[in-house]
Amino acid sequence: MRIGILGTGTVGNTLGTKLVELGHDVKMGSRTTSNEKAAEWVKSTHSSKASQGSFADAASFGEVLLNCTPGSLCLEVLKMAGAENIRGKILVDVSNPLDFSKGMPPALTVANTDSVGEQIQRTFPDAKVVKALNTVAAPVMVNPRIVPGDHDIFVCGNDSGAKDRVKKILGDFGWINIIDLGDITNSRGMEMWLALWIRLMMKYQSPIFNLHIQRQN
Amino acid sequence: MRIGILGTGTVGNTLGTKLVELGHDVKMGSRTTSNEKAAEWVKSTHSSKASQGSFADAASFGEVLLNCTPGSLCLEVLKMAGAENIRGKILVDVSNPLDFSKGMPPALTVANTDSVGEQIQRTFPDAKVVKALNTVAAPVMVNPRIVPGDHDIFVCGNDSGAKDRVKKILGDFGWINIIDLGDITNSRGMEMWLALWIRLMMKYQSPIFNLHIQRQN
Repeated sequence: MRIGILGTGTVGNTLGTKLVELGHDVKMGSRTTSNEKAAEWVKSTHSSKASQGSFADAASFGEVLLNCTPGSLCLEVLKMAGAENIRGKILVDVSNPLDFSKGMPPALTVANTDSVGEQIQRTFPDAKVVKALNTVAAPVMVNPRIVPGDHDIFVCGNDSGAKDRVKKILGDFGWINIIDLGDITNSRGMEMWLALWIRLMMKYQSPIFNLHIQRQN
Repeated sequence: MRIGILGTGTVGNTLGTKLVELGHDVKMGSRTTSNEKAAEWVKSTHSSKASQGSFADAASFGEVLLNCTPGSLCLEVLKMAGAENIRGKILVDVSNPLDFSKGMPPALTVANTDSVGEQIQRTFPDAKVVKALNTVAAPVMVNPRIVPGDHDIFVCGNDSGAKDRVKKILGDFGWINIIDLGDITNSRGMEMWLALWIRLMMKYQSPIFNLHIQRQN
């Protein structure tokens, strides 16, 4: 499958590398076609399946797009990528609206009565937005087994078919417990979890953890 | 120990009954001294250790106070209870700032850059506010074993001695995994968890669940 990744940070790098390893063709997009971090990533994969380009190049290339830019920037990034390159596609929103400008722990730039996932879906109504993977750190996203025991990953979105394809990718990453919360408004719950996640990360001085929902089946 | 419970709802009833069963003297406070729900609760315990009174009566009576009123009302309730009756005491804030006025799922009346726990501590600086138990449903609070497997409860607050006493009470309820997040500002994380909790409750059509943090020790 052809996958376009928007963003050159840790999350984009980690997901891109895993997807190349799984045999997908991955183009990493950034503001410029010759971004150095994207070039380093392409080189690091030692694979002809990895390439780089502008945000619009990556969006045009991918059948499935992954938004790996910060939640506070991603609407701007997606506009640069171009609505015409996003239309009808599965757009996996991995972002979190963390505001680090006032130090740690960050507040969220949007929360409670709205979320980044919803903002993206409203701004690009023809995209099939699926919120996923934002609830764990990058190393856990692609290798859930580094956290011991049973633990869970969430998805939400308005399009069932799109969610099924994303769940398949999550399964390929090694995820077993995938909790589908429903439509894209549930992004609020997935993003607000970060307020607790970030405090646990600070307490444990490690991002390598995750939650498991315990209940009677 | 003498415990004052503020609020006559499900949470106040459930905690009050358990505390009486554990041998504590419990006074349930409400707006009037003859509140019918409080009278029913007293009767239901079949114990001389249970009593009722005004918010001020309950606050004056208790060595430890439990705020079991809604997050949106509790500052008003605590003012009725009287700062002089709260001063120097352990005040366990079990509340959540859920706003049901616009239907389900509720948003929070305060979130992200503030929390009810912090509001209470700021308004009553001489109280030893400990946020606890707001992250699970009432039946789970006092009987964690109804949820299978390992799962976790959180506390936060500025006073270590107060937190130790609250942890002891949680232990008496059956809690084994008690995660101390630090000072009262961490109430934000504990209250924002409700955005995910409420969606899981709606999905599973049951409040009998809880989260467990999985990580390498």
